[in-house]
Amino acid sequence: MLELPAVWSPECLTHAPEAEIWVGVRTPGTEVPQRATVLRDAVAAAGARLVAATRHPDDALRAVHDAGLLGHLASVHDDWVAAGFDKDPGQDRVVPYVFPTPAMLDGLPARDPAAVHARAGRYCYDTMTLVGPGTWTAARAAVDAALTAADLVAAGGRAAYAICRPPGHHATPAGYGGSCYLNNAAVAAQALRFSGAARVAVIDIDAHHGNGTQAIFYERGDVTYGSVHVDPGAGWFPHYAGFADETGRGAGAGANRNVPIPPGTGDAGWLEAVTEVCVAAAAHRPEAVVLSLGVDAAAGDPESPLLVTREGYAATGALIRDLGVPVVAVHEGGYHLPTLGDLTVAVLSAL
Amino acid sequence: MLELPAVWSPECLTHAPEAEIWVGVRTPGTEVPQRATVLRDAVAAAGARLVAATRHPDDALRAVHDAGLLGHLASVHDDWVAAGFDKDPGQDRVVPYVFPTPAMLDGLPARDPAAVHARAGRYCYDTMTLVGPGTWTAARAAVDAALTAADLVAAGGRAAYAICRPPGHHATPAGYGGSCYLNNAAVAAQALRFSGAARVAVIDIDAHHGNGTQAIFYERGDVTYGSVHVDPGAGWFPHYAGFADETGRGAGAGANRNVPIPPGTGDAGWLEAVTEVCVAAAAHRPEAVVLSLGVDAAAGDPESPLLVTREGYAATGALIRDLGVPVVAVHEGGYHLPTLGDLTVAVLSAL
Repeated sequence: MLELPAVWSPECLTHAPEAEIWVGVRTPGTEVPQRATVLRDAVAAAGARLVAATRHPDDALRAVHDAGLLGHLASVHDDWVAAGFDKDPGQDRVVPYVFPTPAMLDGLPARDPAAVHARAGRYCYDTMTLVGPGTWTAARAAVDAALTAADLVAAGGRAAYAICRPPGHHATPAGYGGSCYLNNAAVAAQALRFSGAARVAVIDIDAHHGNGTQAIFYERGDVTYGSVHVDPGAGWFPHYAGFADETGRGAGAGANRNVPIPPGTGDAGWLEAVTEVCVAAAAHRPEAVVLSLGVDAAAGDPESPLLVTREGYAATGALIRDLGVPVVAVHEGGYHLPTLGDLTVAVLSAL
Repeated sequence: MLELPAVWSPECLTHAPEAEIWVGVRTPGTEVPQRATVLRDAVAAAGARLVAATRHPDDALRAVHDAGLLGHLASVHDDWVAAGFDKDPGQDRVVPYVFPTPAMLDGLPARDPAAVHARAGRYCYDTMTLVGPGTWTAARAAVDAALTAADLVAAGGRAAYAICRPPGHHATPAGYGGSCYLNNAAVAAQALRFSGAARVAVIDIDAHHGNGTQAIFYERGDVTYGSVHVDPGAGWFPHYAGFADETGRGAGAGANRNVPIPPGTGDAGWLEAVTEVCVAAAAHRPEAVVLSLGVDAAAGDPESPLLVTREGYAATGALIRDLGVPVVAVHEGGYHLPTLGDLTVAVLSAL
């Protein structure tokens, strides 16, 4: 029986990208609205108490994201429609086509382009993360779910779960990508800080490195970040981040711990890596943990080459529980709908 | 009658991208192989002497481009095929999907990703500039055409024309995009320097700003860059560069002159801007000029909102001629096949 509250917002269903552009080809996306209802139904069936997300102010959100990104996400689809792009077949969602990479800019500043079709690439760093009419509403609702879960823990709860969709851990201070728009886990960690936790640890067990969360806290010592994920050096997203030598900077030096693992890793190697991340987190004596809960390291998941089982996920949850501090679990990835709910319940049951 | 030599390589036809990805939608490209044959036939009919491009060593090429870009372009399609991407429908050309923008990296270095599908975005900054099996051959042949034309001028010719395709002026030291792979004009300017010209001026009359050429020479005083183009601040490619306040840096301070003009500009405004660019170039007392010759500012061109006429192009050629130094004309853009040849002849006749 799950005894924890699970925060839910029906607005998370309004984001329906319907496709992603993968090396130039329109393909069906795996980050579908049904993920949220599968999670809701699974945790409710397991006994979790569903709690409605409540609307929160922007203070924690603005503490982790730049105003430029927030303004862009809130307005870009309206601007897209105003420019008439939605009139053309297949162009009803915002997809960038030009990106101000270092190779392009070569030292020039990345100004905000005048044209909406160029501005998209100023903030979005891939072609997979489409913006439609309901994207902002859903992303903002996912933030409210994370903040509501953080409230429950700040009020004395041992654990709370936020059914966040779209996910968030690839969203950087000023950029979105990897099917993420706003960094729900980072916002929850910031809210816990605002609520009085002196130190917060974010632990990320999604199969992919949370480059966004890392970037947000990279120079901070009050919120640590640790992640186990498939090695980007073996060719996996996010490709440019998630390496073991990224350990933090300035006040955050030593507060970032990446444990990349090779494709094909199963429970044994996975749990060893999770343990390493937990030990690093514990060393910073956190007063609360935010768990970036993806279950896409599972053997059946289409988005990673890892082979974690249900037992491995249950043991992962136990390792987090053993840290002995309250946990806000924020959903990230997991794309195999038949097992998504059960694997998530396996982690949450152990908490 | 055209009296100048026109350098031609049939290998420029081997690049046949067949499409570009524009805001996520596969569309027919306008930078088609036929552009080269139209130009060849038009200048030959006007009396130009066709000269075969000869193979040149890489010294000038390596002086303007990073080794990483050259290695990538030479190998990426083979790597793409080796990874099996060409087996899937619509994936026979290399198209990036993730880009290491400043918003993504947030201070991390842009390492070369292990996976070819990610590495593409390390060097290519848009989704329009596809790499197929013949792209490297054609891009390298266009460089040889530019170098052969530079040889003819270095040997005492008053002017020479290189039928370069693909075009080049959007290729930066380490990046490709905007249908450009290698910067033919920059290589020609570098070769003229190697041949003994103390100062070279690149004058770019393509409708779009040559952000690549600007970047290559931005910190150099020996090669100046001047461009007239549709204002990127009005929403035109390359969006992030081409503003009037980009004037050069270090040894190149004051040696870069951008004259952006508004959409809808016709001959009068165009020639005023070309004059400004020529005056700036003359102030540096160049011993040779490289003309980045695009004719896409023409009223009928699909790729720009400018309204230059045939008479405007003839007057443009006269302004270049009046600089009184030898000219290597390197073809850039121009996408309206029915007028492409005639407008080009209009410029070249005046030289």
